[in-house]
Amino acid sequence: MSDPADLAARVREGDLRLHELEEHADPETAAAARRELLEAETDADLGTIGDFSFAAEDAEPNVENMIGGAQLPMGVAGPIPLNEDGEGGAAEGDFYLPLATTEGALIASVNRGCSVIRAAGGSDARVTKSGMTRAPVFRVSGIAEAAEVVEWVEENVERLREKAEETTGHGELLDITPYVVGDNVFLRFRFDSKDAMGMNMVTIATQAACDLIEDATTASLVALSGNLCTDKKPAAINAVEGRGRSVTADVTIPREVVEERLHTTPEAIAEANTRKNLIGSAKAGSLGFNAHAANTIAAAFLATGQDAAQVVEGANAITTAEVKDGDLYASLSIASLEVGTVGGGTKLPTQNEALDVLGLRGGGDPAGSNADALAEVIATGALAGELSLLAALASRHLSSAHEELGR
Amino acid sequence: MSDPADLAARVREGDLRLHELEEHADPETAAAARRELLEAETDADLGTIGDFSFAAEDAEPNVENMIGGAQLPMGVAGPIPLNEDGEGGAAEGDFYLPLATTEGALIASVNRGCSVIRAAGGSDARVTKSGMTRAPVFRVSGIAEAAEVVEWVEENVERLREKAEETTGHGELLDITPYVVGDNVFLRFRFDSKDAMGMNMVTIATQAACDLIEDATTASLVALSGNLCTDKKPAAINAVEGRGRSVTADVTIPREVVEERLHTTPEAIAEANTRKNLIGSAKAGSLGFNAHAANTIAAAFLATGQDAAQVVEGANAITTAEVKDGDLYASLSIASLEVGTVGGGTKLPTQNEALDVLGLRGGGDPAGSNADALAEVIATGALAGELSLLAALASRHLSSAHEELGR
Amino acid sequence: MSDPADLAARVREGDLRLHELEEHADPETAAAARRELLEAETDADLGTIGDFSFAAEDAEPNVENMIGGAQLPMGVAGPIPLNEDGEGGAAEGDFYLPLATTEGALIASVNRGCSVIRAAGGSDARVTKSGMTRAPVFRVSGIAEAAEVVEWVEENVERLREKAEETTGHGELLDITPYVVGDNVFLRFRFDSKDAMGMNMVTIATQAACDLIEDATTASLVALSGNLCTDKKPAAINAVEGRGRSVTADVTIPREVVEERLHTTPEAIAEANTRKNLIGSAKAGSLGFNAHAANTIAAAFLATGQDAAQVVEGANAITTAEVKDGDLYASLSIASLEVGTVGGGTKLPTQNEALDVLGLRGGGDPAGSNADALAEVIATGALAGELSLLAALASRHLSSAHEELGR
Amino acid sequence: MSDPADLAARVREGDLRLHELEEHADPETAAAARRELLEAETDADLGTIGDFSFAAEDAEPNVENMIGGAQLPMGVAGPIPLNEDGEGGAAEGDFYLPLATTEGALIASVNRGCSVIRAAGGSDARVTKSGMTRAPVFRVSGIAEAAEVVEWVEENVERLREKAEETTGHGELLDITPYVVGDNVFLRFRFDSKDAMGMNMVTIATQAACDLIEDATTASLVALSGNLCTDKKPAAINAVEGRGRSVTADVTIPREVVEERLHTTPEAIAEANTRKNLIGSAKAGSLGFNAHAANTIAAAFLATGQDAAQVVEGANAITTAEVKDGDLYASLSIASLEVGTVGGGTKLPTQNEALDVLGLRGGGDPAGSNADALAEVIATGALAGELSLLAALASRHLSSAHEELGR
Repeated sequence: MSDPADLAARVREGDLRLHELEEHADPETAAAARRELLEAETDADLGTIGDFSFAAEDAEPNVENMIGGAQLPMGVAGPIPLNEDGEGGAAEGDFYLPLATTEGALIASVNRGCSVIRAAGGSDARVTKSGMTRAPVFRVSGIAEAAEVVEWVEENVERLREKAEETTGHGELLDITPYVVGDNVFLRFRFDSKDAMGMNMVTIATQAACDLIEDATTASLVALSGNLCTDKKPAAINAVEGRGRSVTADVTIPREVVEERLHTTPEAIAEANTRKNLIGSAKAGSLGFNAHAANTIAAAFLATGQDAAQVVEGANAITTAEVKDGDLYASLSIASLEVGTVGGGTKLPTQNEALDVLGLRGGGDPAGSNADALAEVIATGALAGELSLLAALASRHLSSAHEELGR
Repeated sequence: MSDPADLAARVREGDLRLHELEEHADPETAAAARRELLEAETDADLGTIGDFSFAAEDAEPNVENMIGGAQLPMGVAGPIPLNEDGEGGAAEGDFYLPLATTEGALIASVNRGCSVIRAAGGSDARVTKSGMTRAPVFRVSGIAEAAEVVEWVEENVERLREKAEETTGHGELLDITPYVVGDNVFLRFRFDSKDAMGMNMVTIATQAACDLIEDATTASLVALSGNLCTDKKPAAINAVEGRGRSVTADVTIPREVVEERLHTTPEAIAEANTRKNLIGSAKAGSLGFNAHAANTIAAAFLATGQDAAQVVEGANAITTAEVKDGDLYASLSIASLEVGTVGGGTKLPTQNEALDVLGLRGGGDPAGSNADALAEVIATGALAGELSLLAALASRHLSSAHEELGR
Repeated sequence: MSDPADLAARVREGDLRLHELEEHADPETAAAARRELLEAETDADLGTIGDFSFAAEDAEPNVENMIGGAQLPMGVAGPIPLNEDGEGGAAEGDFYLPLATTEGALIASVNRGCSVIRAAGGSDARVTKSGMTRAPVFRVSGIAEAAEVVEWVEENVERLREKAEETTGHGELLDITPYVVGDNVFLRFRFDSKDAMGMNMVTIATQAACDLIEDATTASLVALSGNLCTDKKPAAINAVEGRGRSVTADVTIPREVVEERLHTTPEAIAEANTRKNLIGSAKAGSLGFNAHAANTIAAAFLATGQDAAQVVEGANAITTAEVKDGDLYASLSIASLEVGTVGGGTKLPTQNEALDVLGLRGGGDPAGSNADALAEVIATGALAGELSLLAALASRHLSSAHEELGR
Repeated sequence: MSDPADLAARVREGDLRLHELEEHADPETAAAARRELLEAETDADLGTIGDFSFAAEDAEPNVENMIGGAQLPMGVAGPIPLNEDGEGGAAEGDFYLPLATTEGALIASVNRGCSVIRAAGGSDARVTKSGMTRAPVFRVSGIAEAAEVVEWVEENVERLREKAEETTGHGELLDITPYVVGDNVFLRFRFDSKDAMGMNMVTIATQAACDLIEDATTASLVALSGNLCTDKKPAAINAVEGRGRSVTADVTIPREVVEERLHTTPEAIAEANTRKNLIGSAKAGSLGFNAHAANTIAAAFLATGQDAAQVVEGANAITTAEVKDGDLYASLSIASLEVGTVGGGTKLPTQNEALDVLGLRGGGDPAGSNADALAEVIATGALAGELSLLAALASRHLSSAHEELGR
C-alpha cells in the first residue's frame, strides 16, 4: 500500500491527488512517491533532492507536497566583535555568522568587512524599534461611518488588546494605527512578538480583534491583511515606520586600517557612498540606500531559517559613510528586519545548528533578546558587506573579484 | 597535514586564517575543519550541516569559507497548463513547479491556485520586456562637462557596444540610458543576457565600456554600480522600466469555477484585490501591488538556483482582478524578475534537478527561451498563489489556514 | 530723496542695493523704483505689475524686493452642499469655492462636478487626522549615543512640550516621533496649529525644544528641518502619516444622475478610475492616485492665500470609485493638505475676500474649525473635479474640452 | 439686460445659471454680476477681487465663472549671471527673476543666494532632457493581446507620428514607450513641444494617435491619460525619466565667499545637505532631495504664468553639495520642470511683463530655446534658494529669519 511506485501509479491514474499522498503513507514515502511520479513524467533524476538530512515528518509544518530538500552551500563569516562595552545592545561579544548562498564572492566580502571591523575594535548595534504588524482592511459605508469606526477603535484599545492577547501566550499588542481611504478603514496592529518573527501569531491575534470590531461596529472585514502591514512587498510604510526590528550597526574605522586593509581612503569610501548609495538611489526612486545589504541578509536568513520572502523588507536599509576626524564612520540602518529564533523554519536541523553557532537558538532571556541579538548580528554582518563592497568599488575591483571568485 | 582536527587547531592557534584552509586541504576537508573549529568555539553540533549531497569542490564558485550545506524542504505544485494556443509565449504545455520553502501553507496555496487555473483551461504568460542592467556612476567637474560626456556617449554607442561585447560570448548590449544629477553621470547599460541571469556578465562588459569612456572623456568612474541598476534594492526604476524579465501571467476563470473551487465570487475577489492590493498598497507607499507574490518567487528561486536577494526586485509586481462578463479575469505583472537557467546557483545538484523537473535546464533554443519560459512559469505559479490567497482572504480563512498548516 | 527715478539711479550706480530701498523710501516708492530700474535694464514695461490693489506696506510680511503684484483670474464654483446631516464634519451647508487659475476648463470641470454632487444630495467630508510637523536632525557620535538621546527625548516629552509651547499662544505639541539613521537622530514634532497652517509657529516652537535637547544631551542640531517634516517635497511619510489635515470627501451618486448629467455609467467611471488612478499610478511609482486633484487644490490655495508650494503635499491623494447597489460611490482622500484661515497670505485683500465668500476668514470657534472646514470644502471641490474629469475621460472628450475651452 | 444686479437677480431666481452669464453679457459685466450674487449670498465684500488689471475677455481661455482677479505680491531676485562661457546653455548673461509669493523671507533668501552665485562668478545650467508626455491607457482582452498591440505600435511608430503631428504646427513626437499591466496597455507618448509647456498640444496629438490605434488594433481606449504621463501627481516615472525639462544648475563657490557671505563653511553646508537633503529625504521615502526648491519654482511659476499645479513635478529635485579642493560645489537637478513661454497663462498682462523682465517672452530662436532658458534661470534661482537655506540651517538662523521677516 505504501510503496512509492504504487502510490505514484495511483496518482497518475487519477485515483489519488498529489497532495493526498500523506493520507496513505508516511511523509517519507509520500515524498518518494512524488519523486517517482515526477521522474516518470519529466526527464529529471531526483537523486540529490531525495537525499535530505531532516526527518520528513519534522518538515510538515513548513511544506506541502514535499518531494525532498533543496541544498545550498553554507559558509561562515567572522568572528565579529559586537557591543564590547556591554551597555545597551542585545548581542555582546564575538559572533560567527553562518551564511547560505550561491552568490560567489559574497562570504569573502562579508568576511573581509568583519576583519576590518575587528581591526577597528568592534561594532556597536542597537534595535531602535520593534514590532510585528498586521493591517486588516474594513469596508464601511463612507467617510462619516469611517470616522465613527476609527473613534470606536481608539476608545476600545483595551478591549481589543484583551481579545487579541487571549490568542497568544507571548504576544503583546503595542498599538493600533488607523488609516482611512474613502470607505476603507485600515488598522495597523503592532505587536511585540518576542523571539518569534511573529507573522502567524499576529495574524491570529488580529483576527480575534477584528471579530470584536465587526461585532461592535458597522465595519465589515474585507481582508485580514490590507497591505499596510506591509508583508513581503517593498513599501515606504516599512521603510519609514519599521516592521519587525529596526536595527542599526555602526563602526568607526581608523584611517590606517582603511588604508592598509581596504587599500583606499575614508574620503574615497565616503564619496562612493554619497554618489552611489545616496544620490544614485535617490535618482532611482529607491527605498534602499545601500550597496548590497540584501545579499548578506538573504544568506543569513537562509542559514538561520528565516522567511526568504522577507528579504524584501530587509532591503529597506540606509548606509552612511563619512569622514570624522580623519577616520571613517560607517553605519547601516535596516528599517524592517523580520527575524525570529523560535518557530517557522528555525526548527529545521541545519537552521537549528546555524542558530547554535550564533548561540541564539530558541527563546532568549529576557524574551525577545535572542531575536534582538540576531538582528544586531545580521546588521553588523551586512555592514561588513557594505564596507567591503564600497571599498572594492572605490578601488575598482568589483568585476575582477567576480572574475576570480564568481564564475 | 590535511586532518580536519589539525587544521582547526592551527586556525585556533593563529597559524592559519579561516579562509586559507583551502590552500592546505581539499574543499571537503577544509569544510570539515571549519565545522570542527565552530563546534569547539560554540556549543553547536554541525552534524546535518556537514551532511550535504553536493561535491564541495563543485560549490567553490558559489561560496567561500564553506562549512557545509543548508537544507530546506522542497515541494512541488502543478501541473500548470501554459500558453496552450502555442502562439507567442516561451513556455508551452504543462509544468510542475518545484518550490523550496519553510513557509507552511504556501505550496498548498499555490497548488490550489494551479488547480483552479487548470480548471479554467490554463493561463497565458508573456515576457513583455527583457534586459539585465548595470549603471556605473562617473564624477565630472560639473553640469557643463556632464552634458558633454552624455553627448559623447550618445555619439559612440557603437564603439561602446563593441568594447562591451568583446568580453562576453553571449551578451548583447541593448541600449545605454544616461541620467545626470549635478556632477554625477549615471549610464544605465542594458544587455540581453540570454539564458543567464547575467549580473556577472553584464558587470564585466560594462567595466570594459567604462574603460573606454574614461579614456575618451574627462569622466572618472566612481563606482561600477551607481545604484540605478538597481540590484537588490526596492527601486521605482525597476518597477517602471523593468530589469531582467518583465513578465505577465493571466487567466480568465469561469464564475462556476470560482464559486465551486474557491468558495467565493468573482465580485468578492475583485473587491478584495482593489481594497487590499490596489488601495492598500497605494496608501502604504508601496511598489508592490500584490498579495504575496514574493512567497512563490522566493520558493521558486531557492528551488531552481536563482539569487535569493533578487526576490527584492521580484516583489515589484501588480495583481489585477476584475469581473468580465460575469467571470473573473486575474493577472500578475512582475516588472523585474531576474532569472537564468545557466550559471550561478543553477549548476548545483538539487537546483539542477529542479530545473529538469521544469524541462528548462541549461541554454534554450533559441538562446534566452529557457529563461523566458522559467519567468513565465514562475509568474503563473505566483498568480496561482495570488488567486488562492485572495480567495482565502475573501472567504476569511487566512488565519485558520495558518492554524492548521503553518504552526 | 524718495523719488523712484533717483532711487533707481542710485541702485544702478552701486550706491544702494536692490533690497535696501525700503530703508530709504516707503514701500510703495521702493517698489516703483525697482520697476523703474527693471524697465531701464530690460525691455519690459511693468504697467500692470505696478497696478496692484493691496497696500504695499501690508504685503511686507509676504515679500521682499517687491515690484508690484501678479494677477490671476479668479472664478467660483458651487454651491456645494456639505455634511447636510450636521454631524461630525466642520463644514456644514452650502459653500461657494473661489478658485484662482490660468488653467482653462478647470473651473468648468469643478463646477460640473459640484452640480452632480448637488444633484446627489451633497457630500460628506471629514478631517481624519490633523497636525503640522517639523523634524530637526541632530548629529550624534554613533548608534549607541543615538539610542540614549531617543530615550532621553521619550522620557522628557513633558519638558519639551513646555519649552515648545512657551513660544506660541495657540500651538499645542501632539507628539514627537524619533527616527534613527546611523549617527543621525530625526525627531518629528507634530503640533495642533489650530486655524493657522502653522509652519512658522511650529518652526519656532521646535527650535525652543531643540535648544533644550542640545543643553541636556550630547546631540548637536544640524538642521532645524531634517526633511522628515516633509515640507514641499513629495514624500511617502506625508502620504502615509499625513501632514496638516488628512481629509476625505465622498458622495454616493444615483445611477440616473451619472447617466443623465455625466453621460456615462457608474461602471465606466469605476473602470476608468481603477485602470488610470489605481493601476496607472501604481505602475508610475506615484504617491498620487488621483486624476487632477492638484489642479483644484492649487486654484483654491491661490484664491485663499495658502502657500502655493504646498500644493506638492496636497497632491498626495487617492481617488476611489466603485459601484454600490447600482449607484456610484466616489471619494477623494487627501493625506496632507496644509491650510489655514489666519496668517501667511490669508491677510492680503483678495485672499481675505475669498475667505469671506467661504465664510471662513480668521479663527474659528472652536479654534481650528475654520481651517478644518476649509480643508473639507477644498477636498469636496477637488472630488468634484475628479468626478468631472473621470466622466470626461470615460466619455472621451478630454481633448475636445481643451480644444473648446483651453486654448 | 446686461446690468450686473439684474443678472445676479436672475441667477438667484433660478432663471439663469452661474456659468451662463457670459451668454447674456460681456465678460466684465458677467464677472460683476457674479460678485454681486456672492456679496448678496455671503458676507463678503469683493472690492479688491473686482479691481483687476487685465481685460476680462482676455482671461477667457484661462478661467470660467470669472469673478475677478487674485493678487499676489511680486518681487524680484538677481541679477544672476548664467552660462558666462557662452557654450551649451540656452540662457546666457544676467537675468532678473520675478517671483510672486506670499512666503515671507523667500525672495530675500533667493536673492542672497544669487548674490553669492554672482560673487562666485556665475552659474552653469543645462537642460539635459526635454519632452512633454501623455500616456493613454487601453483595455485589451489579456496579456496575449497586449503583446500583439505593443508589437503593432512598435512597428507603426511612423504612422502614429504622422497622425499625431497632423494636429499640431510645432509639436514633434519623440518616442512612444509601452508599459503593460495585465489587460492594460499604457503608451507614454513624448513630444518636443518647443516653447510651449505643451500639455494641451500633446493631449490633442495623442488623441489622434489613439484613434488610429483603436482603428487598427483590438485595443480600446479607456482614458487619454492613464497616469503614466504623470501630470500633477508626485511620481517616480517623472523623477527618473523626466517630464518637460530635466534641468541642472550648478556653481563652485570659493571658500572665502562661503565664509564671508554665508557665515559658514563648505564642510558645514555639505554636511547639512547630506544629513537633511540626502539622508533625511531617503528616510522620508521622498522623491525630493532638496531643501525648498518648490518655493522658488512656485513663485517663478506664478510670476511667469506657468501652471501652478505643476509645481508638484517641479519638486522632484536633487540638491548636492560637496567640498572640492576646499571650495563648495553645489548643484540642483530638477527632473521634471514643465515650463513654457507661449500659451497658457503666459499671455496675461502681469505674467507677460514678468517674461519681458527675463527677456524670454514668446517663442525663442531656435524654437524651444526660450523655454529652455526659462528652465535654466528658474533652476539657478532655486539653486540660489537652496544655498541660502542650507547656509541658514547650517548657521542656525532659520527660525529667527522667519521671526524677523515672515511674521
